[in-house]
Amino acid sequence: MKFCPDCGANTKLEIPKGDNRLRFVCEKCSKIHYQNPKSVVGILPTYQDQVLLCKRAIQPRQGFWTLPAGFHEMEESTLEGAIRECKEETGASVMDPTLYAIFDIPQISQVYIFFKGELKNKAFHATEESLEVRLFNEEDIPWSELAFPMIEVALDRYFSDRGNNNFPVFREEIRRPWKSRRLA
Amino acid sequence: MKFCPDCGANTKLEIPKGDNRLRFVCEKCSKIHYQNPKSVVGILPTYQDQVLLCKRAIQPRQGFWTLPAGFHEMEESTLEGAIRECKEETGASVMDPTLYAIFDIPQISQVYIFFKGELKNKAFHATEESLEVRLFNEEDIPWSELAFPMIEVALDRYFSDRGNNNFPVFREEIRRPWKSRRLA
Repeated sequence: MKFCPDCGANTKLEIPKGDNRLRFVCEKCSKIHYQNPKSVVGILPTYQDQVLLCKRAIQPRQGFWTLPAGFHEMEESTLEGAIRECKEETGASVMDPTLYAIFDIPQISQVYIFFKGELKNKAFHATEESLEVRLFNEEDIPWSELAFPMIEVALDRYFSDRGNNNFPVFREEIRRPWKSRRLA
Repeated sequence: MKFCPDCGANTKLEIPKGDNRLRFVCEKCSKIHYQNPKSVVGILPTYQDQVLLCKRAIQPRQGFWTLPAGFHEMEESTLEGAIRECKEETGASVMDPTLYAIFDIPQISQVYIFFKGELKNKAFHATEESLEVRLFNEEDIPWSELAFPMIEVALDRYFSDRGNNNFPVFREEIRRPWKSRRLA
């Protein structure tokens, strides 16, 4: 942040009085501009024994498989955002999604909030954001072609939880370097 | 956002191509400046049968009781942030806090991520942010003097869960107008 979004003057990095972190502070109007992590909201959509994945049409990780998710928008709940992203990226609707996972990714200052929910029906399709959208059985999951570590963690956990028929909400921190659980 | 933080030129509100929401877009460098909800991280600290509350030293709701919580900082996990806020606001340390609740407050574009954890010991004290810090038994909770609806929900749920000796992670949306569960 080089310029103050409020008055357009130059900002400087300094630790405000009573604070202990560097902040962007306007040299003219003295406004402190805090920066905070972003949250990403998404869904793990299921259909009977299968899960719905989408192949990313955009960078980063174009062509790799992911779960529908995206940045949380202003004035929506995390659930509303997750349902919206699922619809936008796959065309699919899910029934009564419930909270399932939080992924902390502090290196990139992001928090993922994931729900899981059963598809209302098999109505889904490729979209501007997804080259392909399809259901996978566990044995067909393309583990080596997943877009992000947290997608592997979410799926790995889901299949494990399914074996126990119990899906407690969990939180996991994704740290780099990442060590895959499914790939040698 | 009146001015572009990157180049200092004027911004305008418009719906970018391929988008469906108004965004601040720079008239000169065309950068799109997205705005997203903020996350707040906190802890419900317990000590045997009691919970730790702090009386707010600052606005909003100065003088009302709350749980230690504050804005999630860049490059920290939600857990690290919750532990930090607990320490900053009460001087207390908790043992192995675990995820407990997410509160969605879409009207103010905030998401609260709460942990719960047992205090290491009874070392806590008033701080710059807390006029008073003390342990309360359930029957002494000042329900009419709580700072925010979500504090009531968290405590109400905690005492209910304690009765069942089971503390599943839950999510709740706080909508206004707020209807208290504990006050007529």
